[in-house]
Amino acid sequence: MTKIGIIGGTGYTGVELIRLLARHPQAELVVVTSRAESGRHVSEVFPSLRGVCELTYSKPDSDSFADCDVVFSATPNGIAMTMTRDLMDAGIRLIDLAADFRIKDSTVWEHWYGMQHACPELLDDAVYGLPEVNRDAIRAARLVANPGCYPTAIILGWLPLLKAGLVDVNDLIADAKSGVSGAGRGANVGTLLTEAADSFKAYAVTGHRHYPEIAQTILQLSGKSPGLVFTPHLAPMIRGIYATLYAKLVTEQAIDLQQLYEEAYADEPFVDVMPAGSLPDTRSVRGSNICRIAVYRNEQRVIVLSVIDNLVKGAAGQAVQNFNLMFGFDEITGLEVVPLAP
Amino acid sequence: MTKIGIIGGTGYTGVELIRLLARHPQAELVVVTSRAESGRHVSEVFPSLRGVCELTYSKPDSDSFADCDVVFSATPNGIAMTMTRDLMDAGIRLIDLAADFRIKDSTVWEHWYGMQHACPELLDDAVYGLPEVNRDAIRAARLVANPGCYPTAIILGWLPLLKAGLVDVNDLIADAKSGVSGAGRGANVGTLLTEAADSFKAYAVTGHRHYPEIAQTILQLSGKSPGLVFTPHLAPMIRGIYATLYAKLVTEQAIDLQQLYEEAYADEPFVDVMPAGSLPDTRSVRGSNICRIAVYRNEQRVIVLSVIDNLVKGAAGQAVQNFNLMFGFDEITGLEVVPLAP
Amino acid sequence: MTKIGIIGGTGYTGVELIRLLARHPQAELVVVTSRAESGRHVSEVFPSLRGVCELTYSKPDSDSFADCDVVFSATPNGIAMTMTRDLMDAGIRLIDLAADFRIKDSTVWEHWYGMQHACPELLDDAVYGLPEVNRDAIRAARLVANPGCYPTAIILGWLPLLKAGLVDVNDLIADAKSGVSGAGRGANVGTLLTEAADSFKAYAVTGHRHYPEIAQTILQLSGKSPGLVFTPHLAPMIRGIYATLYAKLVTEQAIDLQQLYEEAYADEPFVDVMPAGSLPDTRSVRGSNICRIAVYRNEQRVIVLSVIDNLVKGAAGQAVQNFNLMFGFDEITGLEVVPLAP
Amino acid sequence: MTKIGIIGGTGYTGVELIRLLARHPQAELVVVTSRAESGRHVSEVFPSLRGVCELTYSKPDSDSFADCDVVFSATPNGIAMTMTRDLMDAGIRLIDLAADFRIKDSTVWEHWYGMQHACPELLDDAVYGLPEVNRDAIRAARLVANPGCYPTAIILGWLPLLKAGLVDVNDLIADAKSGVSGAGRGANVGTLLTEAADSFKAYAVTGHRHYPEIAQTILQLSGKSPGLVFTPHLAPMIRGIYATLYAKLVTEQAIDLQQLYEEAYADEPFVDVMPAGSLPDTRSVRGSNICRIAVYRNEQRVIVLSVIDNLVKGAAGQAVQNFNLMFGFDEITGLEVVPLAP
Repeated sequence: MTKIGIIGGTGYTGVELIRLLARHPQAELVVVTSRAESGRHVSEVFPSLRGVCELTYSKPDSDSFADCDVVFSATPNGIAMTMTRDLMDAGIRLIDLAADFRIKDSTVWEHWYGMQHACPELLDDAVYGLPEVNRDAIRAARLVANPGCYPTAIILGWLPLLKAGLVDVNDLIADAKSGVSGAGRGANVGTLLTEAADSFKAYAVTGHRHYPEIAQTILQLSGKSPGLVFTPHLAPMIRGIYATLYAKLVTEQAIDLQQLYEEAYADEPFVDVMPAGSLPDTRSVRGSNICRIAVYRNEQRVIVLSVIDNLVKGAAGQAVQNFNLMFGFDEITGLEVVPLAP
Repeated sequence: MTKIGIIGGTGYTGVELIRLLARHPQAELVVVTSRAESGRHVSEVFPSLRGVCELTYSKPDSDSFADCDVVFSATPNGIAMTMTRDLMDAGIRLIDLAADFRIKDSTVWEHWYGMQHACPELLDDAVYGLPEVNRDAIRAARLVANPGCYPTAIILGWLPLLKAGLVDVNDLIADAKSGVSGAGRGANVGTLLTEAADSFKAYAVTGHRHYPEIAQTILQLSGKSPGLVFTPHLAPMIRGIYATLYAKLVTEQAIDLQQLYEEAYADEPFVDVMPAGSLPDTRSVRGSNICRIAVYRNEQRVIVLSVIDNLVKGAAGQAVQNFNLMFGFDEITGLEVVPLAP
Repeated sequence: MTKIGIIGGTGYTGVELIRLLARHPQAELVVVTSRAESGRHVSEVFPSLRGVCELTYSKPDSDSFADCDVVFSATPNGIAMTMTRDLMDAGIRLIDLAADFRIKDSTVWEHWYGMQHACPELLDDAVYGLPEVNRDAIRAARLVANPGCYPTAIILGWLPLLKAGLVDVNDLIADAKSGVSGAGRGANVGTLLTEAADSFKAYAVTGHRHYPEIAQTILQLSGKSPGLVFTPHLAPMIRGIYATLYAKLVTEQAIDLQQLYEEAYADEPFVDVMPAGSLPDTRSVRGSNICRIAVYRNEQRVIVLSVIDNLVKGAAGQAVQNFNLMFGFDEITGLEVVPLAP
Repeated sequence: MTKIGIIGGTGYTGVELIRLLARHPQAELVVVTSRAESGRHVSEVFPSLRGVCELTYSKPDSDSFADCDVVFSATPNGIAMTMTRDLMDAGIRLIDLAADFRIKDSTVWEHWYGMQHACPELLDDAVYGLPEVNRDAIRAARLVANPGCYPTAIILGWLPLLKAGLVDVNDLIADAKSGVSGAGRGANVGTLLTEAADSFKAYAVTGHRHYPEIAQTILQLSGKSPGLVFTPHLAPMIRGIYATLYAKLVTEQAIDLQQLYEEAYADEPFVDVMPAGSLPDTRSVRGSNICRIAVYRNEQRVIVLSVIDNLVKGAAGQAVQNFNLMFGFDEITGLEVVPLAP
């Protein structure tokens, strides 16, 4: 059994990690830390885990993870990077679900995240944990930067087009909608049920932290810095990312986009290219690690619909997928959860 | 025009007061205070009030309400009582939407609210502002204790039975369900959309602060301290109280409960006894000051269904109704808002 | 008092019309027809209207509207056109909330709506009832085609740009999100709570009936047939349209878009250009006739956020606004309802 | 592998059965019938099952289930009973998720279900499939009547009290709240999102079909026909039953109710007696087969809070639990799904 620790297990990505790892036949969760809830049973904070997780939150300290083979960090941004060097030195691999290692250029990172990076020298070692793009590198990685939820849905939506060089990367629009769990479990007026239910709104229109992450991956895939408009919205639901993606074809030749997508993802266990004419909805992936995609053409425009569960393929599930790759397990181990619908 | 001030206009009862008073032909809102938001436009905090309220929040101080004929206090419990004596002395009438003056016995109040009462000597002057029970006293009142949301729905549901002495007050059960706005606009993990949506739960099963308020009014109406079980629940919706009330008839004689209720409320502008066999729902009163009631008999049990909008008849609307009574206006002035359904 | 009839008062636009007209000081609702509910009280079907509307549904026949000055048709598409000639001949003005008279070219209409038009010769007389575009014509109109909900939000969002000729009409994207009430009150699996709640999806991606309506108005305003991508989505909420609009500026000159919008709508009673940097949400217009707009620039892209209540400014409220214009009342009469938030 | 057929796999209990059986190591789903959807892929109707279930709906006929060891019937009431005799004769065991075999007295059944029973002679053979009550009989059963959702939550909530004879069965009140999926997947105005969201209501106050089922089991457990008030409510959520149960103790002796419950359910894999003072919520069991219970005492009243997922422990999950018992598998096989929260 691979021994696992979780840093910061009181947020939504934490509870999702525990949910998934609890049924993973190769994983043994041995420690979950939380400064605030130290001493309480995990299942007291999350009654859904009663009978599933018998651990008690412990205070994070230098020895917390001594027995672990790998640590998942599910803390807010800026925490994992303060512990990474020590973990690396102890031979413990790290999967960071926050943003500390997602951006290769520490100056860009510091601009968007408003703090100094604690270990910029490790950024080169970090592998961006999107298996559909970096599978081989992930296998060998000691430090994985687990992607953001929006970037996952958006990049998977555009990946076949970008790889084939079919669209104008100077004219990309990502109109994305997120469930409220994307905002985390912190007490906040804006995400109260009374504020967010039965309503809809855009936010961060002038710049969202996932922008540089998306742009960096597009650059990696296409060789060009994109001209990208990214508009995130808050939808009155608990889970789910819905990305509606607009790109302009640079060729007027006949292209079978459906075939392009089906072939691109033929071997991917967690990307489902739906039949032509399909309309994915977020509930069809609720609780599962699947990204469902539909692709449409409207003259020179390609419209891609890409949906994920933000807490699974957009966070904890993708982290477990990366964990499987890193430790040589079948990539789908522990991730065969069927979506919950209705 | 009657000049009005609001203490603490940043919560949900505050925004409701402003919504209703803005269309009240006899009311002129002249000041809204808020310590936290002082200096901001009211409509910046509540964009729904853009074009409706041009006021700016001001810091509460001793002169804030000098020009007012009446002040509505929409603060948390324990604030209004610290300002009441000064307002009284200045000849300004006060309608407190919090609980400071609801309980006649200051010892009981202090037990349930966990603080010392600032002016117990004023409790006798305070009139409990449930017009269907205390209409005449409200007209003359200088200080009105506006009822809680649960007590309003529950007392109106049982009032005809209690007045007629038809039920055993030692065997009362109020199973009540509230929308999340009842918990206020404070940042709180438990009322995040992610925690409260698509779920249902009871809370405060061992004792809710509205219990002594309900018990006190039952005592007033029946002459007896009740044996009452009151179970509040949190329902995944924004507004609404749904009270399902169980009582046991003390007579085996044939009683036409439908007629009893219709006659009891025949002249009440805001209590709607629905036709026999009806099933009220909370959306049928959304945004309005109406309480809708249906009454059923099951052998010796009487089951009453009583619904209100917790922010209107359960708070701000009832406060405006009391205001109308206190200042001699037609009781329905400003309260003719049609419920919003769907 | 102006005497009013409603054809088909059992849907959501019907109940909204009744809600608004009930508090309109110049309107007297005298007849509401429904084939299916004939004989039932309106308030039995819509308990929110108890005490508000005392009418009983009547069967529609040739004499139903003999006493009316104006009739609102709130039926499905294809019904109003079968009665229009008779109403016109009887001197009764008609406001059709369905699509029968929105498209000037009957061939286009017949293509999108899949039926033959019953009175194409009346299409020229029909005035498209968007007051911000056609106010004077509406005043004189005998037959008003009340706009669709998406077209209202989208056209109002782009109107200042289109009039000023600032954007490339060949490169327009409207990513629009609607509450479920836009789908009407018909029994339908897809709009069950269990199917549509806590989920999000695009629909009609290959062509929505509001497309030709939007395109026609853009042509009218800009002189050019647009290249428009219109992607409607279903959001898990009851009311609201949220249109996120993307256009490309055709000039590189400095333009103060905020000022352009503020000036364009300075005299409009129901269009609220929010301060720079604002983020409208649909609940800020819930139940009201207001369209709130925010405008952003991202290099050569203009992003406009435009929100309405689909049942009010997107249907019944706009119809009442048109009614006010047609009968010489103050345009805001009966429409001063404050949005319901939370 | 045990071969399984499903009659009527297009409703919510059907999709849940497929979800659960797809991950059951001993189950092989070989046929799913549907008259309406015959010929369509299951995963076309339920995209959440893409990659999970490759079956196509087939028309039900006499040979449909020839290869099956067991058939689950997930049809509306009244269908399973028409096929039962043939299945029995063919040696195929049947688990009926509808109500056809729940009531022992066919006269009572016919009164509540409004049709004639097709095979009253089989009622004696049918075992009421509540494992916590009838485990041994279920093991041997050829025909299992899977309990209703309300009866499951309510009986499990009261079981320890009834067995111990501690409460007055003439004075029982079950105030129960259900998510909308309990109403099924049929097109129906009352369960549209627009009708049921953001609202709350009681229904079937004068008699719900689950009443005789609850009463029959109370009679079985206590020896007495109960005096029971059962009030079902519709809560604005997708899944979940919340039963708030009121009973009166018949003894004034000190009883440790917490201990009584913990001992009664100590060996039950799917009943979780929460610690004293806990407040269960429905999301803590979402998607799982667990019933969580909390028990409180208020003088002579016992208040029990009992929650389940109506589609799992209240339907498909309990059916799989019964299947495991019938075929000698570990009772929890395939049911170790962790609840999905948030």
